[in-house]
Amino acid sequence: MAEANQKRRLVAGVDLGGTKILAGIFDAQMTCLGRAKLTTKPERGFKEVVGRIGRCVEEAVDECDLEMSQIQAVGIGAPGAVDADTGEVVFAPNLDWHEAPLAEALRGLLKLPVRVENDCNAATLGVHRVEFGGTPRNLIGIFLGTGIGGGFIVNGELYCGASHAAGEIGHMVIDVGGPKCACGNSGCFEALASRTAIFKKLQKAIAGGQESLLADQLGADLKGMRSGDLRKAIQQGDKLARQVITDAADVCGIALANLVNCCNPEVVVLGGGLMEALENEMAPVIIKSARDHFFTGNQNVKIAVSHLGDDAGIIGAAVLACGLAA
Amino acid sequence: MAEANQKRRLVAGVDLGGTKILAGIFDAQMTCLGRAKLTTKPERGFKEVVGRIGRCVEEAVDECDLEMSQIQAVGIGAPGAVDADTGEVVFAPNLDWHEAPLAEALRGLLKLPVRVENDCNAATLGVHRVEFGGTPRNLIGIFLGTGIGGGFIVNGELYCGASHAAGEIGHMVIDVGGPKCACGNSGCFEALASRTAIFKKLQKAIAGGQESLLADQLGADLKGMRSGDLRKAIQQGDKLARQVITDAADVCGIALANLVNCCNPEVVVLGGGLMEALENEMAPVIIKSARDHFFTGNQNVKIAVSHLGDDAGIIGAAVLACGLAA
Repeated sequence: MAEANQKRRLVAGVDLGGTKILAGIFDAQMTCLGRAKLTTKPERGFKEVVGRIGRCVEEAVDECDLEMSQIQAVGIGAPGAVDADTGEVVFAPNLDWHEAPLAEALRGLLKLPVRVENDCNAATLGVHRVEFGGTPRNLIGIFLGTGIGGGFIVNGELYCGASHAAGEIGHMVIDVGGPKCACGNSGCFEALASRTAIFKKLQKAIAGGQESLLADQLGADLKGMRSGDLRKAIQQGDKLARQVITDAADVCGIALANLVNCCNPEVVVLGGGLMEALENEMAPVIIKSARDHFFTGNQNVKIAVSHLGDDAGIIGAAVLACGLAA
Repeated sequence: MAEANQKRRLVAGVDLGGTKILAGIFDAQMTCLGRAKLTTKPERGFKEVVGRIGRCVEEAVDECDLEMSQIQAVGIGAPGAVDADTGEVVFAPNLDWHEAPLAEALRGLLKLPVRVENDCNAATLGVHRVEFGGTPRNLIGIFLGTGIGGGFIVNGELYCGASHAAGEIGHMVIDVGGPKCACGNSGCFEALASRTAIFKKLQKAIAGGQESLLADQLGADLKGMRSGDLRKAIQQGDKLARQVITDAADVCGIALANLVNCCNPEVVVLGGGLMEALENEMAPVIIKSARDHFFTGNQNVKIAVSHLGDDAGIIGAAVLACGLAA
């Protein structure tokens, strides 16, 4: 078994998040041989997180009954602004990292080639490669979670822009003068339709006296609320929860149409934790709202929901690692 | 003279607008040898307009002391949704054209290869080639006029999307629930910052009792107002005109930042009739507003104003024609 594996080209794909690290081991066909998960613990600082990433990769390798010597390269998707040329995480607010030399540190630790990309770029690459067989020439990934990010495949390849900053669709303003965003501006897509925005809106409505099963279950401050709680509340007939989710989905459809009217891709894919938890509640509204806002010539644009979940990020990171192992 | 010209590769570039047709004759270095202009008269129907385009090209050729036999190909930028593969103008509201076979008709008339493109795509190509020497890998053109359109250069080439519908940046919603747009939706960039939107806002303010030199000069309905009248009014201290133009420029900066946050280009170029007439009044506001809305990683994006004016479109069309003449 180990001998057969040694002849295969194996890589590790890592998805680094603010709360957890996910690592997977992949062969050249992008089959996942095994996975491991660790908490991130960003409060312990950069060096400690790098160590945890290394351990997570080692755990995933062990999970597959392999040895580290059989791994040829590591790809990693990291949150925030990433310079893929230098391998630096330029700015990642939820890790509190500024100009963090992630590729260099991980290379030193694991003695392997390392490629770093923005997490949403990596996830878009994963979705494009595995769910769409790499065929669409132009694809846009929209990931709804705590924040909102995106990725672009242009002419069959990941598009990163002039300085690796492309894909920040969460900071597209769609409601001038709208709610304040964490970035400092107002009315950003992320300030209207991310999990954070939805939670804030619900808290405010409940504080304002509106009724919701969520308040009965979690208390008025909705402490510890998860996307799954929202889904259950809607299924139990919670009108406030349904309204807030419908409004967010409607806005999401407008943002999607904005991207389509500008870029006219073949496919737009919706993913991320919020989408995963609330697909049935959000996807039909998003699709209707988007199509209502499509300009002439986009009637054939396909809108799909990714079902890769957390795997999108590690697959995309593995695709990047494959480029290094070639 | 004629003999020397015969050895050169000469092409015609045409910009077809709702009110006028502009044609230019270019050599392979994109030097303009001469121009001609005709009114469009779209009310006379498709066939008549095609005839007028042909005559305009012939006039431009005559203006250069050349003969039609010396022209090797024609490129044409047309308003609305254009299918560059079939050469069809799929939909052009201000010409009242639906599925109009422009390339075929013009080819039949002039007995020359013809390439049709969306007018803003052609203008972006013209700006990229002539004002920027074709060097930026990624450039976005924003054209402010009666409507608002755009074009994208990606990896050094014109990006048209999956079905030639890319670049409709005027129908990016940036104010959900905002003013009604001609496309049927609300809060589009075009409904907030085009010449049409600015004129409507001024008319409404004056009808509501606000004072303006424009009303004194043109009457309360502002009949026949041009962008130049606006500039003059602002220069004469018209507060209402300045406020409306400042608001439009502010919104334009937000739209520009939206595009930059998504696409992270090297350069964004502002052009179009409104920009040409009101550069001093609008450009500084646009640039400030855009930079205030740039997300991390875009600090090196260059914002420039095109000074090609009407020539951007005919140059871009000539670049396309050159591809056919090669």
